Amino acid sequence: MRIVLDAMAGDHGPEPLVRGAIRAVEETRHHVILVGDVKQVEFILNREHAMHPRLSVVHADTVVGMDEAPRASLKKKNSSLAVSVELARNGEADAIVSAGNTGATHMTVVLRWRPLENVSRPSLAAVLPVPHHPVVLLDVGANIDCKPRQLCDFGVMGSVYAREIFGRRVPRVGLLNIGEEEGKGTEVVHETWSLLNKSGINFIGNVEGDDMFRGGVDVVVCDGFVGNALLKFGEGLMSSFTSYLKDELTSGNPATRLGAWMVKPAMRRCKARLDANEYGGAPLLGVNGICIVSHGSSDENAIKNAIRMAGDCVKRDINGKMRQALNPMAGRIIDATGRE
Amino acid sequence: MRIVLDAMAGDHGPEPLVRGAIRAVEETRHHVILVGDVKQVEFILNREHAMHPRLSVVHADTVVGMDEAPRASLKKKNSSLAVSVELARNGEADAIVSAGNTGATHMTVVLRWRPLENVSRPSLAAVLPVPHHPVVLLDVGANIDCKPRQLCDFGVMGSVYAREIFGRRVPRVGLLNIGEEEGKGTEVVHETWSLLNKSGINFIGNVEGDDMFRGGVDVVVCDGFVGNALLKFGEGLMSSFTSYLKDELTSGNPATRLGAWMVKPAMRRCKARLDANEYGGAPLLGVNGICIVSHGSSDENAIKNAIRMAGDCVKRDINGKMRQALNPMAGRIIDATGRE
Repeated sequence: MRIVLDAMAGDHGPEPLVRGAIRAVEETRHHVILVGDVKQVEFILNREHAMHPRLSVVHADTVVGMDEAPRASLKKKNSSLAVSVELARNGEADAIVSAGNTGATHMTVVLRWRPLENVSRPSLAAVLPVPHHPVVLLDVGANIDCKPRQLCDFGVMGSVYAREIFGRRVPRVGLLNIGEEEGKGTEVVHETWSLLNKSGINFIGNVEGDDMFRGGVDVVVCDGFVGNALLKFGEGLMSSFTSYLKDELTSGNPATRLGAWMVKPAMRRCKARLDANEYGGAPLLGVNGICIVSHGSSDENAIKNAIRMAGDCVKRDINGKMRQALNPMAGRIIDATGRE
Repeated sequence: MRIVLDAMAGDHGPEPLVRGAIRAVEETRHHVILVGDVKQVEFILNREHAMHPRLSVVHADTVVGMDEAPRASLKKKNSSLAVSVELARNGEADAIVSAGNTGATHMTVVLRWRPLENVSRPSLAAVLPVPHHPVVLLDVGANIDCKPRQLCDFGVMGSVYAREIFGRRVPRVGLLNIGEEEGKGTEVVHETWSLLNKSGINFIGNVEGDDMFRGGVDVVVCDGFVGNALLKFGEGLMSSFTSYLKDELTSGNPATRLGAWMVKPAMRRCKARLDANEYGGAPLLGVNGICIVSHGSSDENAIKNAIRMAGDCVKRDINGKMRQALNPMAGRIIDATGRE
């Protein structure tokens, strides 16, 4: 399996990316193609004595900035992103991983690879690190205004993903709503409910924001505005909570500080259980290719896991399975509602 | 100040509600009128030896269930909710507090009290317990599909609330979006941006979900679908995090368990800093009256704080100030966009 890693784009530059690639070739059987400034990348590789036979480097002149407008980024034909996407398009690689600008990655991939057959709109999915029970939440920012048909496709794609990657035999798919009763929510949500209910997947109905943490649902469908807001809200909440906790534990009396030192390993385990890095990134589902978008601040562990996840997607042929799952579905929906 | 408390509605029945009322008369100078089944309420009062001169009881035959459909609940003319709302409407009380069915409370209050002059849509606001810096988030579930004009009104009402209740001199109002740049988000969000920008309040532009925890914003505007999803997601996330933490701390080796015992007070302080109960409840803004909706699982402390908050709203005449703030505003918006 040949996985391309955009080795330049991310909050902390090539350092954690290249180190993540090194760990990936050590811990998996994938080939990793590092795309970026050859000098910088090889400098890190040499320093780490990492001349692995399954590691190669492809040069790219520039990098798309984290805050660059997606449309403007398309003009950089020789950015590490553009080169990565082309390598997969030409069949020289099987999947790409990027910790760069999400909007630019999404736009480049959709334009160059095109959406998968029968997919109304590709979708960015996040994997919520609920311990022992990862939840696939989609969309998380690629699609702001969604039609019911598109939301229904998200449910089908998420279901395939949860089955193939997380081994749920019959994934339970829920629709994010503000109450569990049928008939709650907006007009779009009502219509989506009906479509999902006829889609042939295991649709369990409406779920609320807190249900995602209770182990009763595997895939949660919402539009990209809501999904993105949820993810960022969760990030902010967790980081403020952990910073108060640290504050209280380190500023207390000597007994508290000693106690804090004693519980440190347990705290670390707890944090690891909720660490998004364990899942490595958000898959962009519904395009002709495999693309994992990692968080800009990913560490080497996250990058390694993203590369592993990309390999799993290829191995499990998730695109073939999504095409299959969406094909009869599309037919049924047209029958049921009389329109596409 | 005479505050009505619906003494029957909540997840745990009258017990914590009546006890919260007792604490409120002890710690504030408000009169509290308990509305509910006289026998049950007086039984608790007697047991607690709480025959305070500023506590009185008004009988109500029934109670609106937590899961009852709001529309159906309107038929219960003698529910503790209906009686509470009438007491305030007749001028026999200045404000109400309820930990009951949010949808039913919202509907009853809006129908019986009517929206405030110039308010396009009353809104349920939540106070996020960011330590030292509470953030007013609105709407959190009363309005699912919002027009830009309504969202703009939410910003104005939230601004008055943050100024009068939390003492922010010039509250900073942000619009929840999926990026900070102008032009992000849906069509409705774009239009709201323009309206807020001309509204005369201190509009600081788009904010993202994680910005709420950084102290840079006092009021965040979003539609009720998003706001509700955020609140519940946050609740689920915090409760799962604290349960893992407890798990790790109590199941570890003896050193961890000893350390856990030593840091217990610090943990408790940390939890208190993030405890929503400190703010007692969500104000329903933009109606002819003061109504605080508390969480169904409120403890006596939350109820006491909600009663205090209701008193503050009356004392600061937030409705008079909102009417004032919305009046010139409405004019300006009509001028700017050519329509209401």
